[in-house]
Amino acid sequence: MTAVQPTGRLYGIGLGPGDPELLTVRAVRLIQAAPVVSYFAKAGRRGIARTIVDRWMTGAAEEIPLHYPMTTEHAFDSPVYAAALAAFYEGAVGVLSTHLDAGRDVALLSEGDPLFFGSFMHLYVRLRWRYAVTLVPGVTGMAGCWAAAGEPMTWGNDTLSVLPGTLPIAGLIERLRATDAAVIMKLGRNFAKVRLAVDEAGLLARAIYVERGTMENEIVMPLADKPDGPAPYFSLVLIPGRGRR
Amino acid sequence: MTAVQPTGRLYGIGLGPGDPELLTVRAVRLIQAAPVVSYFAKAGRRGIARTIVDRWMTGAAEEIPLHYPMTTEHAFDSPVYAAALAAFYEGAVGVLSTHLDAGRDVALLSEGDPLFFGSFMHLYVRLRWRYAVTLVPGVTGMAGCWAAAGEPMTWGNDTLSVLPGTLPIAGLIERLRATDAAVIMKLGRNFAKVRLAVDEAGLLARAIYVERGTMENEIVMPLADKPDGPAPYFSLVLIPGRGRR
Repeated sequence: MTAVQPTGRLYGIGLGPGDPELLTVRAVRLIQAAPVVSYFAKAGRRGIARTIVDRWMTGAAEEIPLHYPMTTEHAFDSPVYAAALAAFYEGAVGVLSTHLDAGRDVALLSEGDPLFFGSFMHLYVRLRWRYAVTLVPGVTGMAGCWAAAGEPMTWGNDTLSVLPGTLPIAGLIERLRATDAAVIMKLGRNFAKVRLAVDEAGLLARAIYVERGTMENEIVMPLADKPDGPAPYFSLVLIPGRGRR
Repeated sequence: MTAVQPTGRLYGIGLGPGDPELLTVRAVRLIQAAPVVSYFAKAGRRGIARTIVDRWMTGAAEEIPLHYPMTTEHAFDSPVYAAALAAFYEGAVGVLSTHLDAGRDVALLSEGDPLFFGSFMHLYVRLRWRYAVTLVPGVTGMAGCWAAAGEPMTWGNDTLSVLPGTLPIAGLIERLRATDAAVIMKLGRNFAKVRLAVDEAGLLARAIYVERGTMENEIVMPLADKPDGPAPYFSLVLIPGRGRR
């Protein structure tokens, strides 16, 4: 008879907004204790997550990069890309399951917070019923950006709306008018539309543009001053609330 | 001639949602280096912030608790209380300025994130033009709560609305219907109204109630199952988004 091998535990670990010192104490401890450390990365890249944790890695863990499918041939929102992505997640689940089934804990890294717009969630919903899971919340990218901007975001009874720049302009304007504070993410090729919506909603004077908040080469400027053109992945627009002081 | 004494630096430090291990590495480092550590507390109490950092204090710092005015005689939203609060903030600014003017750095602690609904901001806006300031973002209380609940909150192009339970019921219902994901804070005596609004918006089946997320004695349950009555300060309602998986 052989002893039953207990399965490993999955750790979903938030890495914070980009500055390596903004990991939580728990995140560092668990990453350093994990026999397997896994993270998402663009095809052919080392990846942001791996770069953020670089100073905390001891060299003892087996590393499993999960490389997204190539995106050069198909748009992100095409059915072909969606199918490739689903297959990619299933493949990643298979790889991580092999380690978990062998009794090895796996630390799966997530930029920002693992349950807030993270790729982590796509594996988590597939694995959570089969393995024990511990979640470690992280500082969100947006909190890193408003710290970089130095602007209080929400006071007292303010409402905050987090909006994707992919919304149609009418929807953006309507939602901006209905909230006290706002964060607009997913700027990319939506940047010009987003700025127009902010202006139409009467909020351009207090809107701030932040790029790579807390990372090297962070940029903070009034949204009105940002040159036209697409904005990078790690950028967003902040509209601070004003509450009752 | 005496040398000009450089003024101290103000550190606004997020402590995260309550679990002491969810401070960031930077927060711990700066708290341990600061000659003066200050924090808000209810009158007559040690305070949540001081309790969270207990294990990290070296004993070397001078501690300055900032006790809120007594609230037994006046409602939080009364003009009398507002005036008392403004005087309290001015007094706190005076106390901290004395240290900063003497060249001593001051670490001012903030539960959660310092720029997201924090009392810290009331001192920050009064001090930021006079002293050098470093802001350290933290894990928000709401991120601690959704980690405790284990529920992915936002996917892809989801919108997220953070709403105070103090809103009129019609406004709550309207905003809940217009968003993909929601967090409702400031439950307190608004709890029954909030639950009714969530039900009216057709969201009760997926709404989660969380109390003291990541703290000892945390409670997570379906909102539908929560007994009636007021909810404590550290409680909120989560309505996870569903995005496109």
